[in-house]
Amino acid sequence: MRVLGIDCGGECTGYGVVELDGAGELVCLACGAIRLSPREPLARRLARIYGELGAVIEEHHPVEVAIEEIFYALNVKSALKLGQVRGVAMLAAAAAGLEVAEYSPLTIKASVVGYGRASKEQVQHMVTRLLGLPEAPEPMDASDALAIAICHLHTAGTLEKQKVSIP
Amino acid sequence: MRVLGIDCGGECTGYGVVELDGAGELVCLACGAIRLSPREPLARRLARIYGELGAVIEEHHPVEVAIEEIFYALNVKSALKLGQVRGVAMLAAAAAGLEVAEYSPLTIKASVVGYGRASKEQVQHMVTRLLGLPEAPEPMDASDALAIAICHLHTAGTLEKQKVSIP
Repeated sequence: MRVLGIDCGGECTGYGVVELDGAGELVCLACGAIRLSPREPLARRLARIYGELGAVIEEHHPVEVAIEEIFYALNVKSALKLGQVRGVAMLAAAAAGLEVAEYSPLTIKASVVGYGRASKEQVQHMVTRLLGLPEAPEPMDASDALAIAICHLHTAGTLEKQKVSIP
Repeated sequence: MRVLGIDCGGECTGYGVVELDGAGELVCLACGAIRLSPREPLARRLARIYGELGAVIEEHHPVEVAIEEIFYALNVKSALKLGQVRGVAMLAAAAAGLEVAEYSPLTIKASVVGYGRASKEQVQHMVTRLLGLPEAPEPMDASDALAIAICHLHTAGTLEKQKVSIP
């Protein structure tokens, strides 16, 4: 199973494609971040996020998309900014016919580090270990996106197992 | 000049296409609202807004798009919701190669009613009169979208005149 994780941000949006292979190993297929210039008009910035996420989907063929659930933000202004990016990211998934799963930051951290209040650095460290990467994925937005994808694979995996064990 | 006005909302998004014809008359070419079922998954709802706005653009060929600038919202949750819709609406314009102009609610009301603190009903009344419609456009989201388009035409018109008068 192959999952695209997206970490939406007002200035920088991370993405990461992770596969759970036949041997039960997590493999990182791609990761990166889309940085937006505040000088570009907003509509064009959003079009770039949409285009780049679409290109990642077309190249790596994830079967599902996972995204962070957001309940809070610093303030209304940053929530609006984040919402705009999030809407476009979800649309990129829907345009490719993919389902979008949403996870709270707490669930993502608990799934990757085993502790819901883990720091960003702890998440990055565990993502690097779980994916067997030679070094930590940079920027932090990229490793956050990989964490979201891993969380979905863990959860989807657990659900699969439950399906099997409960006839 | 033909303008598409979009009034984004968490539950209902209004649109209105207005033309300023050669005689300086404002003509309503289309208006309506896209209502979203909260039962549908969010990504699919956003895809529907994107698809319907794209269809309006394709049918009526506006040359520019106008949208409300948002600085405040009831709370962070509603700002996120609104931001998601707004991002997708701006993307629909960018996908068609159209520029997006943003106006504050105050500017829109002042431009249509002549008074920045006008009520929604006053805006609807003036939109009906300015466009010479037999009855008020319903729902309110549709008349708000027409007001945004009229505001852009007034502003663009004023700018045109200034260009002429200031050599």
